[in-house]
Amino acid sequence: MTAYELIRSKRDGLALPAGALSALLEEYARGRVPDYQMAALCMAVFFRGLSPDELRAWTLAMLRSGETLDLSQLPGRKVDKHSTGGVGDKVSLVLAPLVAACGARVPSISGRGLGHTGGTLDKLAAIPGFRTDLSLTEARDVVAEVGLCFAGQTESLAPADRRLYALRDVTATVDCIPLIASSILSKKLAEDLDGLVLDVKVGSGAFMKRREDARALARVLVDLAASLGCPAVAWLTDMDAPLGRAVGNALEVNEAVEVLSGRGPPEVRELSLALGAEMLCLVGLSPGSGEARSRLESALGEGHGLDRLRAVVRRQGGDPEALARPLPVAPERTDVAAPRDGVLSGIDTEALGRAAVLLGAGRLRAEDAIDTGVGFTLLRTRGQVVRRGEPLLAIHHRAGVDLAEVLARVEGAFRLGDSAPPAPPLLLERLEARA
Amino acid sequence: MTAYELIRSKRDGLALPAGALSALLEEYARGRVPDYQMAALCMAVFFRGLSPDELRAWTLAMLRSGETLDLSQLPGRKVDKHSTGGVGDKVSLVLAPLVAACGARVPSISGRGLGHTGGTLDKLAAIPGFRTDLSLTEARDVVAEVGLCFAGQTESLAPADRRLYALRDVTATVDCIPLIASSILSKKLAEDLDGLVLDVKVGSGAFMKRREDARALARVLVDLAASLGCPAVAWLTDMDAPLGRAVGNALEVNEAVEVLSGRGPPEVRELSLALGAEMLCLVGLSPGSGEARSRLESALGEGHGLDRLRAVVRRQGGDPEALARPLPVAPERTDVAAPRDGVLSGIDTEALGRAAVLLGAGRLRAEDAIDTGVGFTLLRTRGQVVRRGEPLLAIHHRAGVDLAEVLARVEGAFRLGDSAPPAPPLLLERLEARA
Repeated sequence: MTAYELIRSKRDGLALPAGALSALLEEYARGRVPDYQMAALCMAVFFRGLSPDELRAWTLAMLRSGETLDLSQLPGRKVDKHSTGGVGDKVSLVLAPLVAACGARVPSISGRGLGHTGGTLDKLAAIPGFRTDLSLTEARDVVAEVGLCFAGQTESLAPADRRLYALRDVTATVDCIPLIASSILSKKLAEDLDGLVLDVKVGSGAFMKRREDARALARVLVDLAASLGCPAVAWLTDMDAPLGRAVGNALEVNEAVEVLSGRGPPEVRELSLALGAEMLCLVGLSPGSGEARSRLESALGEGHGLDRLRAVVRRQGGDPEALARPLPVAPERTDVAAPRDGVLSGIDTEALGRAAVLLGAGRLRAEDAIDTGVGFTLLRTRGQVVRRGEPLLAIHHRAGVDLAEVLARVEGAFRLGDSAPPAPPLLLERLEARA
Repeated sequence: MTAYELIRSKRDGLALPAGALSALLEEYARGRVPDYQMAALCMAVFFRGLSPDELRAWTLAMLRSGETLDLSQLPGRKVDKHSTGGVGDKVSLVLAPLVAACGARVPSISGRGLGHTGGTLDKLAAIPGFRTDLSLTEARDVVAEVGLCFAGQTESLAPADRRLYALRDVTATVDCIPLIASSILSKKLAEDLDGLVLDVKVGSGAFMKRREDARALARVLVDLAASLGCPAVAWLTDMDAPLGRAVGNALEVNEAVEVLSGRGPPEVRELSLALGAEMLCLVGLSPGSGEARSRLESALGEGHGLDRLRAVVRRQGGDPEALARPLPVAPERTDVAAPRDGVLSGIDTEALGRAAVLLGAGRLRAEDAIDTGVGFTLLRTRGQVVRRGEPLLAIHHRAGVDLAEVLARVEGAFRLGDSAPPAPPLLLERLEARA
């Protein structure tokens, strides 16, 4: 079938033969199918979806367009977690070392921040000397030696997905569940995993604002991963408020180190333990979640997670001593005060994320530089009673910058009411792959 | 609004502001909007449609991307007919001279054959010396002198539509009613008309196989034309069999001359008179269809239509004496015989059209040359009783060509039964613009 025939078939709701679809995507990866045909196909997929067979073919073609990690010579079970992105989500920094300390191998390959959400790679850039531009061979060696790695996506990883994502980004075909799922898994499955835990964020700070959309994405992700031979579990978790208190790269590393030291915000600790228990159980390193949780709590209490984080920082060129005290943040602090008495009833978390980007903690465009020292500390959380003039949030910034726009956005993000709805549970819903 | 925002809005079913849409299409015409964004937009339009306001803005932007005829200095009423394309449809060759002979001006600008259907321009190419590559100024002068012209589409006519059509052709977004309507009218309204009659073909030889699709297209066409200041009427007409007996360029010119001489197949004469009466009434040259039809019949009977055809042929460089006798056709004739006794119950007219293309009467690709001398003569029509071995159709071809594939297709196109459904009326349904 030609590209034209595949587009027309999808447009008309007919099934695409997996072989023809794979061939098309291979040709696209080689630059032999023009972007205008892929744009038309993606828009047809937006309206018609992809069947499980089509989605599997699509994802495999993206995956096979590039190189993959080969961990087959490494003993032990390999497992990772992927989050769909949120504000203040530093769980990977806690989870990967902690789970590695409990005996799993965590070959984490991460992206940079996207839109209003932060990226693990940007947070790690706050650690002096830390290198994430590892080749796949280096990444494998780091996993072999330390039990985990924090690598950035290389050019050779799923290049067809990179090209397609750039096209979807300018043709309004990003927010399409099968295309999101194939993009995520074409990169995650390149890690040669025995299991994958998916943290699908829901709420005002997530890409999926509505529970049913998040559930639909989670369903596709776990089933697709399983059908490609990688057992998977997904949790829908709350992103109606930032996770923890810190938003911004150095601030978030500091908070992650706090959690690994047995302190820090309870919700960051809780989410790390819950997802960590899933990871250990999923790959058979623990017989059940109770046992898994006990081991994770012990590792945390005994500082083994923090030891692993120091070890991977050292192995990847960073200064582990930099973690002995909080990383430096921007020197100026401006507080945002409550405009009236009330109850903090909600936070427009995407608006807060966009304010952080504007401050310099994230990127408006791919080529923008970020300032790892700037960010926010939340001083009040949902449901708390506040008095007029009390600080809600601290902005950490450089001297002499114009904060007017950032202040306006942050102020607009806080909703004060006379009462607050009960905060949703952090862990909303769990999905396993269907048999 | 950016191109991205317009695509996303259309994708989500939101209304596009006419100004923003016009600006987008202007930028596209100038090569400043990439094809991949237009491809995504066209696919979104395929699923979501265009509102009347959007369609008007779209069509005007296509129209204004190029030059247009300016007939404002010419006295008289200007009117034309457009057919959506069929097999054996030589009505334009009869109608334009006949209506001009009755006092209208017919500034006909036509395209070449498309797919399985023939084009007026290709038929005219069978007349020795006849030039259709007129500039718009030449076309105007010919209309001023002779009352009609037969011009080909120049590069300067709606260039944005030409670029967009080529893109739609490879992205499976051709068969989309608003995009079809805007493409037709962006070119037809460049003729500076006082009225336009639309012949929307329905049936096995038409692009619209189903009556409801043809009706939907006709509805959009007449309303869009009227909203752009050009009164319009549409007829749905039968294309479940070729129109007349001749299929192929020289053969069709000969049949048109027959009709203009008062002979020829009654259905070609009938359709020409009916559409001609609509044209005269539409622009106020006749008080009613009875009077219009009488005038057309008189003009036909007195040979005024044929005189006008000769005049336009002479004015456009052709040899009018060439029309004094039938144009030469390919010298060899091979008949297709009925495989059994029966009633000719139906003809797969698209298959017959494709067989004619294969024979050389049309093009598989835009760059192909055509042979104006080849084609088919239908020897039996729907509903006729045939005996085994009797000829159904004559193939006119060159010596020494391999006819196997053409024969197979032609044989497959005839359906013989024990009885035949009554043939549908030629003129099926009339639509006027809504107030």
